Parts: sequence; structure tokens; C-alpha cells
Amino acid sequence: MKLVTFAAAGRRSFGLWTEAGVVDLGARLAGRYRALHELVAAGDLAAARAFADAAPDHAPAAVRLDKPLAAWGKCFCVGVNYPERNAEYRDGSAGPAYPSLFVRFPESLTGPGRPLIRPPESRQLDYEGEVVLVIGRAGRRIPEARWADHVLGYTLGNEGSVRDWIRHGKFNVTPGKNWAASGSLGPWIATADEVGPGPLRVITRVNGVERQNDTTDRMTFPFGRLLAYISTFCTLEPGDLVFTGTPAGSGARLEPPVYLAPGDEVEVEVPGIGILRNSVADEA
Amino acid sequence: MKLVTFAAAGRRSFGLWTEAGVVDLGARLAGRYRALHELVAAGDLAAARAFADAAPDHAPAAVRLDKPLAAWGKCFCVGVNYPERNAEYRDGSAGPAYPSLFVRFPESLTGPGRPLIRPPESRQLDYEGEVVLVIGRAGRRIPEARWADHVLGYTLGNEGSVRDWIRHGKFNVTPGKNWAASGSLGPWIATADEVGPGPLRVITRVNGVERQNDTTDRMTFPFGRLLAYISTFCTLEPGDLVFTGTPAGSGARLEPPVYLAPGDEVEVEVPGIGILRNSVADEA
Repeated sequence: MKLVTFAAAGRRSFGLWTEAGVVDLGARLAGRYRALHELVAAGDLAAARAFADAAPDHAPAAVRLDKPLAAWGKCFCVGVNYPERNAEYRDGSAGPAYPSLFVRFPESLTGPGRPLIRPPESRQLDYEGEVVLVIGRAGRRIPEARWADHVLGYTLGNEGSVRDWIRHGKFNVTPGKNWAASGSLGPWIATADEVGPGPLRVITRVNGVERQNDTTDRMTFPFGRLLAYISTFCTLEPGDLVFTGTPAGSGARLEPPVYLAPGDEVEVEVPGIGILRNSVADEA
Repeated sequence: MKLVTFAAAGRRSFGLWTEAGVVDLGARLAGRYRALHELVAAGDLAAARAFADAAPDHAPAAVRLDKPLAAWGKCFCVGVNYPERNAEYRDGSAGPAYPSLFVRFPESLTGPGRPLIRPPESRQLDYEGEVVLVIGRAGRRIPEARWADHVLGYTLGNEGSVRDWIRHGKFNVTPGKNWAASGSLGPWIATADEVGPGPLRVITRVNGVERQNDTTDRMTFPFGRLLAYISTFCTLEPGDLVFTGTPAGSGARLEPPVYLAPGDEVEVEVPGIGILRNSVADEA
């Protein structure tokens, strides 16, 4: 199943995306779940699956997708998780022994088909294409080999970053990673049964030109290691998200750097999941 | 007003703390707010104030306080915000030009009177006493001088840290700052009108021995600068929290370092707000 949040005929809802159209789960599950994030937080994929064969309510052209999840408990992002990423920093450091984790809040991520926002305070908005894990079952100290039991599905992330605000403080990248609508999430959550055993290929294009292209089997910390590590110190809960890191090739690493500008089109594609497309606009 | 979350007679509620007892707002506002964080997120202090002169429903000894807020949208923490804190790192760096921000999730903070939990993975649980701002009015790009308009009140934080998990990754302190119940929040939210114009004094004691003692007028980034900075990149919303940094003197900075151990008692006191007390226990 592909789970979406959408608007149609002026009404916000959530449902199942198919090529023939969207099955409106919001209407069918009214009184139980007001939004997809509530269904996911309840770990109730069965409620969606009951309508997997229903006739679509809306033609694809009649809906406007939004980010699949509008809220979550925790969204962890992993930095420096593909081989050439550490070398890109040119700080002479050995590869890290543990994942570098930071956090993104919902406001920082817009939905598919909407503009990434470049704020007036910076000219250094940059893309980072990523696979995002959606947690479906709670776990603390999850054994590495059991990670898949806790993943409900996958979505895509453009972990958009305002580079000159990344290393403002002594530690931590929080400000540069949390500008309003600087990144994106979507277009849907592809449930785990829809996505093959991997590896997954992550491709990012800017105006049709490929900038990132790598596969998840080359990650320093694969999915299982990430969930095991994070759940050592806290409980991963249904609806939590894990951005699993971006391949080499972000705009900041080009020589000279090339940042996103209004009118650019960015595309994050993971074959088997989908394509997340966004334009870029200056803040109004 | 002092806003509390509590349990009495087996029932969880929220209310107003006075020396004579607790006014049960949960009972009076049933149907409107199920928890204090819902009232705060609605920015509806007036709903509480309407009962400020009501007779207490529960004697002080009959209630058990919990952390005032069980959930929030965003909790930012500020690192290295008192003069000697940067020097303590002994990395030869100049003082930072911007606040260092990281994030804590609700699971990482327990309530007053409950044990801070030392996990089996570490022997380096440490305290950090702090003043915590509770946002009461939404704002983006808040002018520094207008910070007080956005603060509903103050609470205390023990921003407990698992030191050997702080700098695990290349950047970011997220893991060492988010161990379940490694820190605490409380005992109440003192509304802004209850707290004097400052400066506030932050004192931390371990087993009665003073370890931290400094005043907020010595902060590198005072309250106004913090809210202005954070709200540059995102919207501060009612119910969001800002841990404003800890004075010099955490256990890791003693020579040799002294970490918390089961049976220890930690006390964070800010005269004019209150005292946040916690014991320490090993994870069961």
C-alpha cells in the first residue's frame, strides 16, 4: 500500500494511493483517526488494509498530496552515513564509530510538489536525498537483526539544509536543519511489503542533472544498526521517523559549491518507493 | 500561579499548586483539556486563572507531582551558555558566536521526586541544573526585546546527561541527552507574573553539597537572544520549551570527574521558582 495525506475538493484527508486514484480512508475511518499520523501512531495498518481493494474515490488529478505525516513524536536524522561523506568534510578524521544523530521538527519539512523555502537570512539552501524509515512497532534495545519487525514502511526525504547555519554553535547542527519548509517528505509511505529486500538506490537530481546516486548497502550504519543504536537510549514508537543519511554529492560539496535558487526543481528518487519532487522559492 | 500535573487517589490530573493544597483543574476543565500540555498549547492561561481563588481539592500530602508537561512540540536545549562553561571544554576555542542548540524528547525527562535512571550502558550519568522557559504565545522572528511577551512561565530542568554518549558521532549530542528518564522537569510551571524581573539564581546540589551556582544575568545568550535566535528559523509555539543552559560545575568537570550513582539526591533550586529534587537509581 501507498499511504498518502491529501486535499481534494477543499477537504483534507488521508488514504491509499493507486494509479487509478485515491481511496479516501479519512472518510471511511472518520471517528477513529483524524489524520494518517494518528493511524500510524496506533500501529493500525490493518484499518487501512481493510480497504486496499476499494474503488478509488478521487481521480489522481483531483488530489493534491501533502507530506504523509503532519506530526510525529520523534524524527531522528543520521549524518555522514555513506562512504565518501566523511571524506567530504576534509577534516582528516577517521570514519565515525557511531551514527551522528540530530532531530527535525515537522515545520521544517514541506510536502511533495510544494516549494522548498529559501529564507532571507541565507543564500545556502542545499538538498540531501534520503530514504526515511517509518516506525510501526515500539521497541527499546531492538536487536539489529530484528529491525524490519519495527518498520511499517518507507518514505523519501529531502533533508534540506541551510548550510551557513549548520555549524553556528559549538556543537550540533539543529538550526541549519530546522528552517521552516527547508526540506520535504513524501510523496507517500510505501508499506514494507511493497518495497523489495533492497538494496535501495537513492538518486537526487537538480533541474534534471544527477547530483547524488548511491545504494543503501554502502551505508556505514545500515538500517538495523541505526534502529539498534537509537533504541538503546530511547523507545522508538510508531510514527517516529529515521532519516537514514544522504549520499555524497550535495551542493555544498561541489567545487565551487552550488546552492539551490528559486526556480530550481529537485527530485529525490528511490526506485521501488517513488519520486519526491519540489521546486524552490524565496520566502514570501 | 503554579501549574502542576499530579496523581491523587489513583487518578491523573492537573491543577494549581498552593501551600494549602492543589486545586484540581482537570476535574473543572474536563471536556476542554485532558492534560496541562493541552491547556498550555491552547495558550489558555485564563482557563486556569478563573480558578485561582478556588478552595483546594487535595491536601499537599495527598498528591504526587509528575513533570508538569507530558508532551510538547519542540524542546530546545542550549549548550555552553555560562562564562566558564566554554573554558571547561579546554579546546582553546573562543566563546561561541551563536547558541549551540540540541533537542530533548519527553521520554528523557522524568518528574519531581522520581529517580533519574542510570542505564546499564554507562557509569557517566551527570546533572545540569537549568531554568526552562515555557512558551505561551507563538512567534517567528521574535524581536529580542519582546521575548517576555512569548513566555508563559518558568520551570526547572535537570538536563541530565550520559556523558560518554554525548560526543559519539561526528557532530551532535543527541544520544547522550536523550536517555530515558536521564533528566527531569518540574516541579511546576511558575507563571511569568509570579517570577520577579530577575536575574535568577541557579543552584544545583548533590547530596546537599553545592555544585553549581550562577545567575542568569551572566549568560552568554540571555533569554531574549535565545528566543530571537531560535525563532529566526522556526516558529516557537505555545508549549514549546527552552532549556537555557547550565552553569559551570557539572560532575564531568570536577577533577577527577564525579558522576551520579544510585542513592544520590540531586536538587536544582531557583529562588522565586522552586526546587526540583530527584534521587538516582539504576535501571531496573
